[in-house]
This record gives sequence, C-alpha cells and structure tokens, in this order.
Amino acid sequence: MLKECFENVQKKTPLIHNITNYVTVNDVANVLLASGASPVMSDEPEDVIEITTICDGLHINIGTLNQRSMKAMDAAGGQARTLKHTVLLDPVGAGASALRTKTALYLMENVAPDVICGNISEIRALAVGTSTTKGVDADGDDVVTNDNLGDRIVFAKDFSAQTNAIVAITGAIDLITDGKRCFVVRNGRSEMGKITGTGCQLSGVMTAYVSANKENALEAAACSVCLMGLAGEIGYAHLQPFEGNATYRNRIIDAVYNMDVQTLEQGANYEIR
Amino acid sequence: MLKECFENVQKKTPLIHNITNYVTVNDVANVLLASGASPVMSDEPEDVIEITTICDGLHINIGTLNQRSMKAMDAAGGQARTLKHTVLLDPVGAGASALRTKTALYLMENVAPDVICGNISEIRALAVGTSTTKGVDADGDDVVTNDNLGDRIVFAKDFSAQTNAIVAITGAIDLITDGKRCFVVRNGRSEMGKITGTGCQLSGVMTAYVSANKENALEAAACSVCLMGLAGEIGYAHLQPFEGNATYRNRIIDAVYNMDVQTLEQGANYEIR
Amino acid sequence: MLKECFENVQKKTPLIHNITNYVTVNDVANVLLASGASPVMSDEPEDVIEITTICDGLHINIGTLNQRSMKAMDAAGGQARTLKHTVLLDPVGAGASALRTKTALYLMENVAPDVICGNISEIRALAVGTSTTKGVDADGDDVVTNDNLGDRIVFAKDFSAQTNAIVAITGAIDLITDGKRCFVVRNGRSEMGKITGTGCQLSGVMTAYVSANKENALEAAACSVCLMGLAGEIGYAHLQPFEGNATYRNRIIDAVYNMDVQTLEQGANYEIR
Repeated sequence: MLKECFENVQKKTPLIHNITNYVTVNDVANVLLASGASPVMSDEPEDVIEITTICDGLHINIGTLNQRSMKAMDAAGGQARTLKHTVLLDPVGAGASALRTKTALYLMENVAPDVICGNISEIRALAVGTSTTKGVDADGDDVVTNDNLGDRIVFAKDFSAQTNAIVAITGAIDLITDGKRCFVVRNGRSEMGKITGTGCQLSGVMTAYVSANKENALEAAACSVCLMGLAGEIGYAHLQPFEGNATYRNRIIDAVYNMDVQTLEQGANYEIR
Repeated sequence: MLKECFENVQKKTPLIHNITNYVTVNDVANVLLASGASPVMSDEPEDVIEITTICDGLHINIGTLNQRSMKAMDAAGGQARTLKHTVLLDPVGAGASALRTKTALYLMENVAPDVICGNISEIRALAVGTSTTKGVDADGDDVVTNDNLGDRIVFAKDFSAQTNAIVAITGAIDLITDGKRCFVVRNGRSEMGKITGTGCQLSGVMTAYVSANKENALEAAACSVCLMGLAGEIGYAHLQPFEGNATYRNRIIDAVYNMDVQTLEQGANYEIR
Repeated sequence: MLKECFENVQKKTPLIHNITNYVTVNDVANVLLASGASPVMSDEPEDVIEITTICDGLHINIGTLNQRSMKAMDAAGGQARTLKHTVLLDPVGAGASALRTKTALYLMENVAPDVICGNISEIRALAVGTSTTKGVDADGDDVVTNDNLGDRIVFAKDFSAQTNAIVAITGAIDLITDGKRCFVVRNGRSEMGKITGTGCQLSGVMTAYVSANKENALEAAACSVCLMGLAGEIGYAHLQPFEGNATYRNRIIDAVYNMDVQTLEQGANYEIR
C-alpha cells in the first residue's frame, strides 16, 4: 500500500496548484518538490482557472485568506471540481474567526473537497460550531489522546460521512478516515509543533499523494501522514545539540527528499480502526 | 530582570498577531516559536479584529504594505488598543517613501503603539521628517556610534517622550528607552545585516516580550534586543567556513530556540544611561 | 570580464527594487544580500514610484501576479524607464495562462525591459505564442541540448533582436544573448531544479549585476548566470548524504555569499557563440 502510493507520486510527478498562505508557502513548494511532485502558486481570480486546469490537484489553505484569494479559491475550486481534479481544503484557523469558519464552510458546501485536513480544533469548529482554536493551533482540551481515541475516531468518521470527504485530523496522534475505516498514525515528534507550517506542508503533500493515487485516496492520504511524520523523526535524529526549529524545518524537508520505499515501510507506524 | 522577562515568555507563551511583510514573515513566525511565543498572521480587514482579540499582542510591520493591509493595521490596532493589548510598530522604510512615512505617522497618531522599533533612519524620518533612508536600511551618516552616543540617547529619549512610546533604535549599538532611562545594548554582529529580516524578527520577539511583561515593558524590550543580539553571536560561532548568510539566518533562530537564562544573563551586554 | 562585473557589484552595492512572487521572495532578498547588492520589496502602486526612484535596478517577476501587483509593475516600470534604471523581466509561467502571457507581453511593449530572463518554455510562449509551459517549469521538448544548440542560439538571438533586450534562457545549458553574441553557460546542477526559486534568485542577482555594469550589460548578465550555477556546484559539494533540497537551497546562497573572484574565474564554464 505505502509502496504503491509512494511510487505513484515519483512516477506521475503530479502538478499541484496551491492557493495558500504567504507565511509557509516557500516550505510548501519545497516539500512538494522533495516529495516528487511539482508546485505552482496562483491566487489571482483571473489567473487561477487556467492554472488549475493544467494541474492534477488543488490545495486550498485559508491561512492569511483575503477577499482576493477567497474569490480565487472559489473559482479554482469550481474548475477543479468540473475537471474531477483532487481538491484538498486545509481550514487554517477555522474557529478562530468568523471569516475563516464561514469561508471553510462555504468551500465545503460549494467546492465539496475530496479531503479536509486540519487540526482537531479546526475540524471541531466546522463539525459542531464550537470555537476554541487558539490562533492557528489546536486547543489542548480537544487533542486526540490514547484515552479519548475511540471517541475521536467516531467523531472523525461521522464528520467524514457528513461531508463525504476524507478527513485528516492531525496532531500527536493523527486520524485519517473515509467514514468507514480510520488510519491511526503515530509517526512524528512533538517538536514539529515548534516549526511554523508543518501542517501546511502536510496538506500540500497530501494533495499530491491523493492526486497520484485516486483509486486509493484514503491509503494515499494516510501514507502522506506517515511520510511527513517519519521525515520528522529522521530529521530530528540528524540535529546537532546547538540546532533548533529553523534547522529542523530544513531537515524534515531533506528527509522527505531522501525518503525511499524501504525506509517508509519500516518506519510507518499506523493501525486501521 | 532578564531572568524574569525570559521566563514570563516561556510560561505565558503569548499569542502574537503579526501584520507584517511577506518577505520575512516565515522567519518571524519561526523566531516567535523559538522564543516560546506563538504566532498568528492575518491582514484581511474583515478577519483581523477577531484574530487580534484572541491574541496578547499586535506586531505591525509596514514593509510591503498595501491598501488592504493598511486597513487591517488600522482596524487591528484600534481593537488591540481597546483591549489594552501590547502594540508594536516597526516603521520599515519610513523615510524611503511618502506612503510609508505617512502610514507610520498615522498609526502613531491613531493607534498609539506601546513600542516603536526601527533603525535610526526610520526613526529620524518619523521624528524630524528627514528622509535619508536607503531603501529599508539605515543611512550611514545617521548610525549610532560611540562618538555620538550621548546625542543619540537624547534624541531617542525625546522621541519617546514625544510619542509616549518605548522607542527601540536598532543598529550596531541599540538604544531602548522609555524617555527616562535608556538601555544601550552592544550585543549582535555586523553580519546580521547581511540577512534579510533580522530587524523584523526582533520586532516580533519584542512584541512577545513586552506582551508577557507588561509591568516591566522597558526591561522586556531591552531583554529581547539582548536575546536576538546574543543569538546572533552564538549562531555565528557555529558557522562553518563555507556557510554564509542563508545558514546564518537559521543558526540565529536555532540559538533563540536553545537559549537559557544562564546563557542570556552571562551574554547580555548592556548599560543603562 | 568576470572580475570587473563581480567587483562592481561589491563596490557599488546596487539597491534593487523587486516586485516578485511571495513564494521565493525571501530567498531573492537573501541572495541579493549574499551577492553584495541590497534588496527592497514593494508592490503597492502608491508606493512603488518613490521606492524605485531611490533604487538602481528594477526586478519584475510575474509569479503570483495579481491586479494590484500588475499595476505596481506598470507604474514602477515606467518610472524606472524614465530614470534609465536597469529593468529585468522574469515572465514566470508565461504560456501557462493567458493573464501571465498577456502581462509579460504588455510589460515588454510598455516598459521595454533591458533584460528578459526565463526558461525556454516561457520565452517560446512570448516569442511564438506556443503554450506548453508545465506550470512554472519548462516543457521537456523545448529544453536546450547539445543537439539543438545551434537552433536554440538562433532563436535566442532573434528574440533578442526583436525585443531589443538581452535575453537569458535558463536551463541545463543557459543562453545569454544581446542578439549578436551568445554566451553559452554550462555551470549548475540538475538538482537545482528540485529547489523552488533558483530561477527567481538568478533574476534578482542578474538585475544587480546589470545595474552595476551598465557598460557591459551582456557580460554582466552572463557573469551572474555563471555565479549562480557555480554556487550550485559548490553548494552541492558541501551536502551531507542525509541533506536534500531544503539545505541545498541554503548552501547555494551561502556559496554566493562566500564567492571570490578567483573561484568565479576558475569555475565559470562558458563559451561565446
């Protein structure tokens, strides 16, 4: 499963259109290249329809959204839907402001993304309307733990069934579900939370993985979560004592770049529930 | 003094709303995380009031300002003022264009920031209307030196009294004053000027420090200057001969990430005038 | 030739106004600093005329263009022309969308850039209207090879004559021509294509080189291509086995930072045709 998903990205080099925030956009581009995919960025409404047309997948990330990029998300989303391209929505900061929650809900309704990928607070804000997102990070009380795992899996499956999308809830324990099966992934390190944009990077790579593996979209989404988490583990192992989050950021992308099937298969830590 | 300021940031993990330029925004986010704070970015007028409401401090940086972000600065600034959040203004490029000078002066008048942090040319442009800023760098003739230190301290104190703000003038010698006392900091290295955005990073971190130390705002601002300068010294010591400004950028953020109280107290180089 | 071009940048530290995409803008700023130049970014129409006035050169890159930045490109371009500043156009994604192609053609007509620097697919889209650009990367069929080198040189010279601009076509083999002579540069490594923005970085540095060497614009443009390619070779030599494209990105900028005349003269690999 991991092997096929991984090799399809390498072989097909999917071109991914990213409408994403300007904070982490450079890392998103580099991690897509590292993963074997190819990135293009465009957020001008007059430009996005043609750009998304030549792509294989569309990654919409609402961090630093604005009136222009919101129009671009809508236009590109509609076109990607028409062309049956993979569409992923990362609802950054949903729950932290009405505009972000509203925009994410609008895109869920009108673009019907294949995949929704966010942290637990963002997903909860979209699912049940509660708003405890701490800026763009998850609220501590919501976090998926071994103790509440069963409940959170039910929640994730319900939200997936309700939205007809693959739902990926990222955190110390990641859940990826299509409403029937749920991958529970335990790769990654807590120090990844000290780098801006590891979630945005995952969303970009997940778009590439699903785009290149449409017949196995759930497995592909889960594979991308294992890949990024494992890259976080490998990258950490190469850090010197005087290195911190800035170098760690590069080490993770480097580890994605150097990933091979054997390492991925041996390092992936997941179960299916 | 340093100990308390440092530990308050670690303990309180202040959430900082940044309306800043897209050139250095990623480094600002990572250095805030490295310092123990948490960043969120938003520059859409419809989004900023709610975002800034859930934050502890607001960092306004006018590099790459535009009509949209200017409205956002105004709206967020007003809300932050109402909520008594810490507000810091970094007048990037003031003196280099009328729009930048005018916008900085407008924000000083209408938002009344707690802290104004810029290089000597930017501060002079705001104080006396002269405009010799070389792009976004300080003009050589204005620079604070040992020879003109007394004069520059008087100038900084006067501008602080006039604006009712803590004023931080950054350069080889940094001045941080509340109009009465002036911290003179001699940390840092000249090579930091060969990295884009070390000033923007400092402004972000300073916002976090003052937000977490409202009762000791002047000390907190000075502490953040010592921290960034010392990180510049430590980061430089770890450079290999073949490494340059790109790696140095990461090494500085890494050094902020790994800073501890003892290192900060031993390395801080300041006097009070 | 290389010596003079290189030393003029160090000596004159040209200030370069960049209106460029938000994906790679930080690397463009850092590589300009590494090369000895100084960057400033502004894309607000009300701001750009004053900003470009205090600069020596203008670098226009249409990646992530939008209605606001398009107005800024036009306004800044007109002012830079009036002041006889060096203007370089990087038509990122020309051929991939009508808006990008149209904008590049408009700027060629109305701003008349001194230099046009892009990959072969982008240049072909502007020259002959074909559109096979794969996102922002060159289409494989167009690429300059030893087999089609003669034809491609004729094409480049014709396009240069037609546009009255120095034309730089970047790829595994780079062509830089003023319509009469063509520099064929064979520096660089294929792995540079796995980093986002090496082309944007080159365009920034090329603007600085031409700005500081107006009497030898063709040589200066070619010199910047050798410099960046050689930096790619040197940076690659310093990579550890576990490092990938993220670290490689930094190593290239580091190598520009540490470049000296002797290394450049010995490492530059070019012929004139």
